[in-house]
Amino acid sequence: MIILASQSPRRREILEKMGLEFRVCPAEIGEKAEERDPRRYVLRLAGRKALWVWLKHKSDSVIAADTVVCLDSRIMGKPKDREEAFFMLKSLSGKRHHVYTGVYVISKGRVRHFCEDTAVYFREISDGLIREYVESGEPMDKAGAYGAQGAGGRFVSRIEGDFYNVMGLPMCSLSCVLEELGVMSGGNAG
Amino acid sequence: MIILASQSPRRREILEKMGLEFRVCPAEIGEKAEERDPRRYVLRLAGRKALWVWLKHKSDSVIAADTVVCLDSRIMGKPKDREEAFFMLKSLSGKRHHVYTGVYVISKGRVRHFCEDTAVYFREISDGLIREYVESGEPMDKAGAYGAQGAGGRFVSRIEGDFYNVMGLPMCSLSCVLEELGVMSGGNAG
Repeated sequence: MIILASQSPRRREILEKMGLEFRVCPAEIGEKAEERDPRRYVLRLAGRKALWVWLKHKSDSVIAADTVVCLDSRIMGKPKDREEAFFMLKSLSGKRHHVYTGVYVISKGRVRHFCEDTAVYFREISDGLIREYVESGEPMDKAGAYGAQGAGGRFVSRIEGDFYNVMGLPMCSLSCVLEELGVMSGGNAG
Repeated sequence: MIILASQSPRRREILEKMGLEFRVCPAEIGEKAEERDPRRYVLRLAGRKALWVWLKHKSDSVIAADTVVCLDSRIMGKPKDREEAFFMLKSLSGKRHHVYTGVYVISKGRVRHFCEDTAVYFREISDGLIREYVESGEPMDKAGAYGAQGAGGRFVSRIEGDFYNVMGLPMCSLSCVLEELGVMSGGNAG
């Protein structure tokens, strides 16, 4: 059995698109790491989540991930309130930022981990449009205060990298790892 | 009222994400144009669809689009059967291709059109995996025989451009046009 160590409905949706059968068991750990490098930050948190869940369910395969948005050298997690969401979006307007997802997979005593980096370009957005978007509530549970898979897609003029990484789980690289570990079919029978 | 001149469930989903209210009225025209340049190809078909629907419903705003996949100089529409789907996917494996969407918007006597180009990189995929994917049925109604919004996302290692363009409707550029035409809010009230 595969366990997704995350509460995120987007990650669940991505595993469903991949055709995986799994169940959800979020890790009960804090969402912060003392780390300034975004790659090390997300890998550290993803590793902690994977380990926490694996210690409870050792017989299963565990997939864990953590995602942050990074503007210049500033790491952005989820906004704590609407005001912070507004200022996060205002700082992203008209600029390029990066989305980093750290992924850990544990399966039958083997561990794989990697970090995916996608560049995201926002068009210029007016304060009024940001306010409308914040009022919609969509930004509140999302790193960087936007959802590229929702109305936030209106702001994204261009990405460079894996789109699903921006949603929280890089589908292509994760598929390669799961195929290599024999957790999902790589079509070898054909 | 806004009319979407397309039967595609992906285009419908994108307009819903954007928060638009609309109804669907597909244009009853052929899906081919005598045109070798992919940009002119999709703009010609999108223009025909928009005009066809606008002539029936002149009082409304019309959004029409056409999407093709282009590998080197070869334009790929929807596969006609599973065998063609297999060979389309085999030719895309391990390579970069381009997705072009032509968009026409007609609103209150004004016409806007543009073409969006997104580069898509496929990882190497085995014949067995292609066969499994073709058997799933997902490729059959899609240009280039894959759905980046479905299990086909497993093959896409990288994109450069608008992700929603690959799904059939470039959300960001379309939003800019609809805001400029006053069809949707650009947040000016704020």
